[in-house]
Amino acid sequence: MFIDELVKRIKEKKSNVVVGLDPRIESIPKIVKDQCFEKYGNTLKAVGKAILGFNKEIIDYVYDIVPAVKPQIAFYEQYGLEGLKAYIETCKYAKEKGLVVIGDIKRGDIGSTSEAYSNAHLGNVNIEGVIHETFAVDSITVNPYMGGDTLEAFIKEINEKDKGMFVLVKTSNKGSGQLQDLEVAGKKIYEVVAELVDEIGKQSLGKCGYSSIGAVVGATYKEQSKSLRKKMPKTYFLVPGYGAQGGTAEDIIHCFNEDGLGAVINSSRGIIFAYKNAGYTEEKYGEAARTEALKMRDAINKVLIANGKCYY
Amino acid sequence: MFIDELVKRIKEKKSNVVVGLDPRIESIPKIVKDQCFEKYGNTLKAVGKAILGFNKEIIDYVYDIVPAVKPQIAFYEQYGLEGLKAYIETCKYAKEKGLVVIGDIKRGDIGSTSEAYSNAHLGNVNIEGVIHETFAVDSITVNPYMGGDTLEAFIKEINEKDKGMFVLVKTSNKGSGQLQDLEVAGKKIYEVVAELVDEIGKQSLGKCGYSSIGAVVGATYKEQSKSLRKKMPKTYFLVPGYGAQGGTAEDIIHCFNEDGLGAVINSSRGIIFAYKNAGYTEEKYGEAARTEALKMRDAINKVLIANGKCYY
Repeated sequence: MFIDELVKRIKEKKSNVVVGLDPRIESIPKIVKDQCFEKYGNTLKAVGKAILGFNKEIIDYVYDIVPAVKPQIAFYEQYGLEGLKAYIETCKYAKEKGLVVIGDIKRGDIGSTSEAYSNAHLGNVNIEGVIHETFAVDSITVNPYMGGDTLEAFIKEINEKDKGMFVLVKTSNKGSGQLQDLEVAGKKIYEVVAELVDEIGKQSLGKCGYSSIGAVVGATYKEQSKSLRKKMPKTYFLVPGYGAQGGTAEDIIHCFNEDGLGAVINSSRGIIFAYKNAGYTEEKYGEAARTEALKMRDAINKVLIANGKCYY
Repeated sequence: MFIDELVKRIKEKKSNVVVGLDPRIESIPKIVKDQCFEKYGNTLKAVGKAILGFNKEIIDYVYDIVPAVKPQIAFYEQYGLEGLKAYIETCKYAKEKGLVVIGDIKRGDIGSTSEAYSNAHLGNVNIEGVIHETFAVDSITVNPYMGGDTLEAFIKEINEKDKGMFVLVKTSNKGSGQLQDLEVAGKKIYEVVAELVDEIGKQSLGKCGYSSIGAVVGATYKEQSKSLRKKMPKTYFLVPGYGAQGGTAEDIIHCFNEDGLGAVINSSRGIIFAYKNAGYTEEKYGEAARTEALKMRDAINKVLIANGKCYY
């Protein structure tokens, strides 16, 4: 099961940190970009090459200290086919390095269309007997607005191919409350979604006791994570919003269960563009990312241990 | 403005029909597929070529009788980069034929990520002074679950580049009620979203009186469309669920305002795979699509006229 693989890596690496691979070209070090622009001109191909080169270096520097990476597909999609080629190659490289890959794609549609997304991002397509994988990763993020049938369409791949998904429950952005916090019969909308995810998740429980169907719960909402943790004890949380978006190690403590498991915490800019911080140079962007990922890992572990939640 | 262009074409063609280009390879006529498989083997390239050839023929047969086409990107994405290449080429070809292109992508994320999607699907990216368009179409569909900031990120392109978007309000699928129909303080969730869309839409009003920021309202929910029409009088509806999903011309009458405008009605399978119906042959799939699109146009116009809502 996907979730067993994820938990195994978390324990091995003593780390709950997910590195978000969101490669904004304007933030990629000049030394990486210039090489590609010289060779391929100011083209999307050059951008794709720069992104891939950058990501590989980041992966080389973090693969032994984090369980997973999370490429945000929008940052690849905006560079067209060349960008998406870099997405595919990045996922492949991360996988080779033993990392769990979570595609942050936030897809979701009516059942038959969700099945097509499921083929694309978890499974494969069968062309006259020949199997083709396209964007397949280990797990994806899914948007629940269209209802339970949207989510059900991904379960076949999840159970048959040991894949996973994280359903948006309470997102980390400022405007998330506009719909998610509305109250129906004493329950917030995000709690209704949480119950739906908890229920659906029972179909995909791993040996570790958690489900391969997880939830996205923003680090920026401490109190909400506390109540959600209770509401969905067997659901793994993918927690965005740490670092650049404002969340701290103290903020995310309630995302974890008493066993110190139950959550992976993502940081993107805060790790991959750490070279911009004081004390680093552009050349050492890989090293800077590693240092920040270690700092984040240790900060989270420290708070977990202080709360009696050691997991390794 | 996007919406003025759309309304102009609706009046010119005397048609509110949108042809959904959802090319499931298993439903594409053998005569189209076989040619491509012979030339390129059982590859994704062959699939991409088959899809593009199929779509072009459909477009050739309908471009003069419908205002717009709506490719559903999931059906391209599942065939990887070759599938997405076919998506890009399809959109380009439809545009050349004077059609408005609505990319059914249902994206949506936190603000800065939505901006990347906006670059990808409405705008462009600037690589060291060189502008690159990737998947840019005239309008897209957007998922509102993450809140208003998700939507705001698309407005820059909408207003500066004469683009549009349709926000999911009440979708056509069976499970749509699970979240969308929940009631908060006397209002359904989809009504809350409707009010949000109506409000945001004021920033993008066209000369025709409608906004370039529209709403997705399923044909399968007749009563809901009636109340939504009143709630958002200046919002154009993109209505899925006609035909194969069960919606009829009678079901969608309330999606229109008294001026006979305010809605475009999508049919995908019902038109593009009409050749499977009795009386057609595989070879004449283009003709079959045209006949069905005309039948649908006439059925809708007839109901509109019977209700005193003639728009041409």
